[in-house]
Amino acid sequence: VTPAPFTSPLTAPLFGDPEVAALLSEEAFVARMIAVEVALLAACAKTGLADPASAQGAAERLTATTIAPGDLGAGTARDGVPVPALVAMLRQRLGADGSALHVGATSQDIVDTASVLQWRDLLTLMEARLAALLDALLAASEAHAETMMVARTRSQAATPITLGLRIATWAQPLITLEADLPRVRALLLRVQFGGASGSASAVGEGAEVLTNALAAELGLRPAPSWHLDRSGPLALGGWLVGLTTALAKIARDLIVSGRSEIGEIRAGEGGGSSTMPQKSNPVGAEAIVTLAQYAAALQPLLAQAASPLEERDGAAWALEWLALPQMAMAAGAGLRHALALVGSMQADGDRMRGQLAAGQGAVMAEAATVVLARHLPRVEAALCVKDALARAQGEGVPLAQVLADDPDLGPLEDWPACLSPDRAQPAAESMRRRILATRAPRT
Amino acid sequence: VTPAPFTSPLTAPLFGDPEVAALLSEEAFVARMIAVEVALLAACAKTGLADPASAQGAAERLTATTIAPGDLGAGTARDGVPVPALVAMLRQRLGADGSALHVGATSQDIVDTASVLQWRDLLTLMEARLAALLDALLAASEAHAETMMVARTRSQAATPITLGLRIATWAQPLITLEADLPRVRALLLRVQFGGASGSASAVGEGAEVLTNALAAELGLRPAPSWHLDRSGPLALGGWLVGLTTALAKIARDLIVSGRSEIGEIRAGEGGGSSTMPQKSNPVGAEAIVTLAQYAAALQPLLAQAASPLEERDGAAWALEWLALPQMAMAAGAGLRHALALVGSMQADGDRMRGQLAAGQGAVMAEAATVVLARHLPRVEAALCVKDALARAQGEGVPLAQVLADDPDLGPLEDWPACLSPDRAQPAAESMRRRILATRAPRT
Amino acid sequence: VTPAPFTSPLTAPLFGDPEVAALLSEEAFVARMIAVEVALLAACAKTGLADPASAQGAAERLTATTIAPGDLGAGTARDGVPVPALVAMLRQRLGADGSALHVGATSQDIVDTASVLQWRDLLTLMEARLAALLDALLAASEAHAETMMVARTRSQAATPITLGLRIATWAQPLITLEADLPRVRALLLRVQFGGASGSASAVGEGAEVLTNALAAELGLRPAPSWHLDRSGPLALGGWLVGLTTALAKIARDLIVSGRSEIGEIRAGEGGGSSTMPQKSNPVGAEAIVTLAQYAAALQPLLAQAASPLEERDGAAWALEWLALPQMAMAAGAGLRHALALVGSMQADGDRMRGQLAAGQGAVMAEAATVVLARHLPRVEAALCVKDALARAQGEGVPLAQVLADDPDLGPLEDWPACLSPDRAQPAAESMRRRILATRAPRT
Amino acid sequence: VTPAPFTSPLTAPLFGDPEVAALLSEEAFVARMIAVEVALLAACAKTGLADPASAQGAAERLTATTIAPGDLGAGTARDGVPVPALVAMLRQRLGADGSALHVGATSQDIVDTASVLQWRDLLTLMEARLAALLDALLAASEAHAETMMVARTRSQAATPITLGLRIATWAQPLITLEADLPRVRALLLRVQFGGASGSASAVGEGAEVLTNALAAELGLRPAPSWHLDRSGPLALGGWLVGLTTALAKIARDLIVSGRSEIGEIRAGEGGGSSTMPQKSNPVGAEAIVTLAQYAAALQPLLAQAASPLEERDGAAWALEWLALPQMAMAAGAGLRHALALVGSMQADGDRMRGQLAAGQGAVMAEAATVVLARHLPRVEAALCVKDALARAQGEGVPLAQVLADDPDLGPLEDWPACLSPDRAQPAAESMRRRILATRAPRT
Repeated sequence: VTPAPFTSPLTAPLFGDPEVAALLSEEAFVARMIAVEVALLAACAKTGLADPASAQGAAERLTATTIAPGDLGAGTARDGVPVPALVAMLRQRLGADGSALHVGATSQDIVDTASVLQWRDLLTLMEARLAALLDALLAASEAHAETMMVARTRSQAATPITLGLRIATWAQPLITLEADLPRVRALLLRVQFGGASGSASAVGEGAEVLTNALAAELGLRPAPSWHLDRSGPLALGGWLVGLTTALAKIARDLIVSGRSEIGEIRAGEGGGSSTMPQKSNPVGAEAIVTLAQYAAALQPLLAQAASPLEERDGAAWALEWLALPQMAMAAGAGLRHALALVGSMQADGDRMRGQLAAGQGAVMAEAATVVLARHLPRVEAALCVKDALARAQGEGVPLAQVLADDPDLGPLEDWPACLSPDRAQPAAESMRRRILATRAPRT
Repeated sequence: VTPAPFTSPLTAPLFGDPEVAALLSEEAFVARMIAVEVALLAACAKTGLADPASAQGAAERLTATTIAPGDLGAGTARDGVPVPALVAMLRQRLGADGSALHVGATSQDIVDTASVLQWRDLLTLMEARLAALLDALLAASEAHAETMMVARTRSQAATPITLGLRIATWAQPLITLEADLPRVRALLLRVQFGGASGSASAVGEGAEVLTNALAAELGLRPAPSWHLDRSGPLALGGWLVGLTTALAKIARDLIVSGRSEIGEIRAGEGGGSSTMPQKSNPVGAEAIVTLAQYAAALQPLLAQAASPLEERDGAAWALEWLALPQMAMAAGAGLRHALALVGSMQADGDRMRGQLAAGQGAVMAEAATVVLARHLPRVEAALCVKDALARAQGEGVPLAQVLADDPDLGPLEDWPACLSPDRAQPAAESMRRRILATRAPRT
Repeated sequence: VTPAPFTSPLTAPLFGDPEVAALLSEEAFVARMIAVEVALLAACAKTGLADPASAQGAAERLTATTIAPGDLGAGTARDGVPVPALVAMLRQRLGADGSALHVGATSQDIVDTASVLQWRDLLTLMEARLAALLDALLAASEAHAETMMVARTRSQAATPITLGLRIATWAQPLITLEADLPRVRALLLRVQFGGASGSASAVGEGAEVLTNALAAELGLRPAPSWHLDRSGPLALGGWLVGLTTALAKIARDLIVSGRSEIGEIRAGEGGGSSTMPQKSNPVGAEAIVTLAQYAAALQPLLAQAASPLEERDGAAWALEWLALPQMAMAAGAGLRHALALVGSMQADGDRMRGQLAAGQGAVMAEAATVVLARHLPRVEAALCVKDALARAQGEGVPLAQVLADDPDLGPLEDWPACLSPDRAQPAAESMRRRILATRAPRT
Repeated sequence: VTPAPFTSPLTAPLFGDPEVAALLSEEAFVARMIAVEVALLAACAKTGLADPASAQGAAERLTATTIAPGDLGAGTARDGVPVPALVAMLRQRLGADGSALHVGATSQDIVDTASVLQWRDLLTLMEARLAALLDALLAASEAHAETMMVARTRSQAATPITLGLRIATWAQPLITLEADLPRVRALLLRVQFGGASGSASAVGEGAEVLTNALAAELGLRPAPSWHLDRSGPLALGGWLVGLTTALAKIARDLIVSGRSEIGEIRAGEGGGSSTMPQKSNPVGAEAIVTLAQYAAALQPLLAQAASPLEERDGAAWALEWLALPQMAMAAGAGLRHALALVGSMQADGDRMRGQLAAGQGAVMAEAATVVLARHLPRVEAALCVKDALARAQGEGVPLAQVLADDPDLGPLEDWPACLSPDRAQPAAESMRRRILATRAPRT
């Protein structure tokens, strides 16, 4: 429909995210590249690699400089990266003070470090949204700690659980992702400074000192050149896919739970049809699923980017540019939709109870077996319950009734009480608490 | 670097294509959706499903109507498709004449048919560029029908071929793709008209007649509803990946052939480094490779879109929107770069001849075996040549000389003549002609 | 669970297919390689490239030869292909008659042509199964031409269709795939004969004649060398993904239709749970979905294989071996499961009728609007029906009743008759016929 | 070529790995499932959930039990998992003592926990091989700390580095992967015990105690049920792709470095051609690249598996079985080949020096600019050097000579000394040490 689905005014409200778009815009990127050059000037000044007065003057003048991304387009097409054109333009503006600009650096140093600054902002945003989503999920889980519903395994009614437990399982991978952020940041938020071939040879022995000074200027971790070590981008990509994937699980459940025949959970405002007034389409949830599949499909590109040839591989490196910002947009839009869905979620207790009773209490068959196994060998107990269930469904009588009416089994237990779905609540509650306890206390 | 690499002014000159971008823009898409509604009005008028005067009047008024894509953004976010908002807006503009608008149609009919109109334009553009590229390749192949070079298999020098043959192998899959266009068009350029659930029930028995009239208005093939049959989008995706993949083969060869140590072929203007004056980076070829890997990674999304659930699947369908326009941009930009590279390609005959002679004529070892097998059993001949080659390389003497000097083998043949790389030209030429003969004569 | 899920005795009954496994086994592959060498001997004899008596004798002796795949394992690891070891072993067995063996051929000629012979068998098998599946689908569609059910769009009840139409939409992409087989065969079933570097230089001017003779021996299409043109494997891969994808649509529908809450269609014998007697898990359908996602994920590897570097690229070529046989197994197992599911499919008319009446007739809302639009402007009609539906659902009264009871709208039409779901049958039937008419008559 | 490339005797020596194959075989898997059932019996005995004597007796009898995987094949096909058939078979063998078998467990508990036991073994093996590879790389890097070579960026000669630095960059992502193992283990090596629907309801309040006892029996981490939280499998997949990807970088470099025209590094025994005696094909390195592309392509399947529907999703879960063992085989075989290649690596110092001198010293152009910038403004210095280089290449005179002969520039520096490639050694050495210092000291 458009080659820019995340930013087109037609589709961005569905697939995009305005905050992520602002952080990752080409304007932001150019500004970040200039910020890196400015920090490099300051670092050179501090470490004696440039005349302090001249470098500091240049840095100050550049701080106020802006360059329109389009002015670097032709240079990007010619050189494969915008940096040579950018440096030429900045040098022209600085005149004699331009000498210290870009000292010892290569294009990749500027592009990678500027990108890292954008990723830092992105992770800050993602962390806040993820925390908000987890808070909302935990509150919803708590609120539904006693709302009984049918669990479905392999699309079939299984046994009773609580809605609170299901919501806790939604939160479960998100808790892991929240806890994983320090690792992702440690791998990703590293300064890049390797010069032409990764040895930073143009600044000679001062390379490490300069790199550390540059890192300090930018608030990044010092590190040896990672021109060829894409562990950071790989970690970011894996984290984003983990996130969109976890959101898609919530969305898929909501789509099914909101089906006309089920209607156990409503979330979001349903989208309208152009012809059918009764429709309440799960548009937000569908978008989350779409975006998750899209983000996952891009992940192999990051692996290909992480096998660069020799000291720099233009074809491999650029794959990160075609994949990571798009994955970030998918994650941002996914979180936005998920927050709206979870925030508006409403359970329909009647329909949930209706499903618990459907099939003459079939979902209690496992529980009946467990109870009966107190009296009979397990295999026999299982067969007895299977027979009783067949009878119940054949005759249209609840399973508990069939068991109670059975001359042999009836006297063994108070079957209606044993087979109340509510009996499953404590186990679900215990598991729910165990899951939620894995979240680190927030400080 | 930006979430819109194909359209951002910073990166579009490298990864994008202005003509494809125009064909696939959101403005073009909205215009195409209106065109479909207009054609539907006209078809309703002709088939009696609407009052002819009113419908024709509405059609005429809409023809001049434009709607800014951004005005449909909120509706797209709400409904998952822009059509309900579009129809509401158009109805408002038409007032009483709006009755016949969108008769019997559903959102998918409008979106799919409008997309097909864009794909039709895209295929026209691709066909022309592909023909131009094939023309250029065939001319270059012809021009180098006698330029001998070393073939490399598994990255090792193998036997002599001609540059003309190598260029013919570049053309080979492109010839198949050119011949495949009618099939892709037959599958893809079909009108979509299925109404709410694919049965076109709102127009009852008139559905087929109306569909055919709509197809006629738009110049598309009539067809039953293909809401759930994504054979057309799958075929388009396969064709685009076939194309980007074929271009990537050319690009990969050019990158290696232009390496500093090889330098046999130069193509394109080399990109500059921000620090190294001697560099002539293969920027265009690298972009082709990057774009091909990107397009191939998106292909599984089309398969997922082709397994929709029930009568419409919002999550699956939207995958086409996130994949196909991007694949089309990759193909467009890839063709643009390939045309520039092939158009500027220059062979360095000296370096090619140098490689033919390298290794004391190792690339003639297979030919030597074939010749010697006229006199000895094949296995013995192979061993003899292997020994001779080892001697040649150990002593730094050409293989032909070693064979000529051998008291037993020397008299058998005129070895220097037999082992001239030029002896390999006729076979290469024959294969070259056989490959190029598979291209259908252009009319 | 096992690195060989298609052939392990533990999992092959679920994910594998014994017939496909036999066709694609390593034993079959080795036999096919020998068959190609035999055919090459015969072709050499006929075209004078070898002594007829000796070559014919060698061919006859090899026809009865078998080699255990494991005997070629070390050679495959050493050379990257089994052919050098195979040729050495065959030469040893032939002694003096071995001279004409493998004349002019390279490893890729043997591997590619042997593979093509296996693909030919596979396509024969696939075609027969696909025809059987289409026959079964068409019969089921016919049988359910009047079985009304609720269509679901975006997971919501939409309007009535027939089960016959839904089944026809299952068949729709399969009809395209059946019709596409001649194209796939034409691209794929070509003899490969290019020699060391694709120019068939070792046999000089006789290359084309020899290739044609070899093709004739094997019943393949003659063609110039396609060492570097992977259009055939790409076409096969696309066809297989199209197939698994189309099967997955059937499977996904069956899983949902067989959910406990819906239960409209039963297919297959449900799988058992280790703990829950009531479960009837849709194991076959799930396997189809799993296999389809797997096959689609492998498709990008074929694109990567289709961009080989220079005259042979060992890394790229081998990707076909890791992808195509697995995709073929997925397609074979998918067809096997689909045949079992479609063959055992049973519709539950009661539950279908129950869903048609659910929501007080909400699925007839679009039809009500169409009918009412005979009397009122369309937009007004739509609003009236929307209001009436809200009233119906609020009061628990059928929509038709609410309309009939309305003092203004009641007299306009016979609402219960108008809003009978059966009214939607003719449109569904017409579309069903249009879809099925696209299948070519079988001869 | 075969649908089981990792285990077929034809291809396993190339693509497979015997140790990984043994760890992940179906026999090992069945044994691990039995081991989990045994541990569950023991845990039940210890926690009072089963009669200690009977359960312990059953556990002892099962410890010696083996079941042929093929005996579970039909059950796997019927139920989608082998567990119901396995449990039935074990119960039959245990007779009356079978009561406590599988108490509270569901199929997924057994399959996931058994798999985790296999992954534990796999990670032990991978860790040892990775450590051996890193040791070999570090030794090679050390040995070549002073071997100067040309760095190539974007396939063009760039500036001098040391081979030691290049080898250090190969190790760089591997060091990160080694350090990441504790995290992967913490996420992955968790006991799975959730029962029918993830709430472990069949064992009621004792669930957590039983789970912890089971974990203790098996030496796994206790954890709440992770039926739906696939963070562990995702982490394993990401780690394996990171590994294959890092190996592929080494392999791609070796393929290029071993090209006929370059020949700077030899590694491995070259594979033979069936026709060309001079060939030394980089078979092992190509296999690494192929396997890495294959493993990366499977990664999206793990993301799809991590979005399961509701409480268990048969289609999603099984994707892990089709992806993870294959990725593990690819990693195992990749490490095996990489160890062989690195262990046999030989540098050709002459050819490296030859390339450093090629192009009249073009690779020293950046260094010349840096030196000259001590005397001139940087931009002027860059232009001067660019001119000098053009003159050098035009006249066939080394760049240092041109600069020395220049009346203005000549006296400024001792150009031949300044432009010796050896001047680049200290910077490369410093970066090399910084990279290798990131490896944690081994205890």
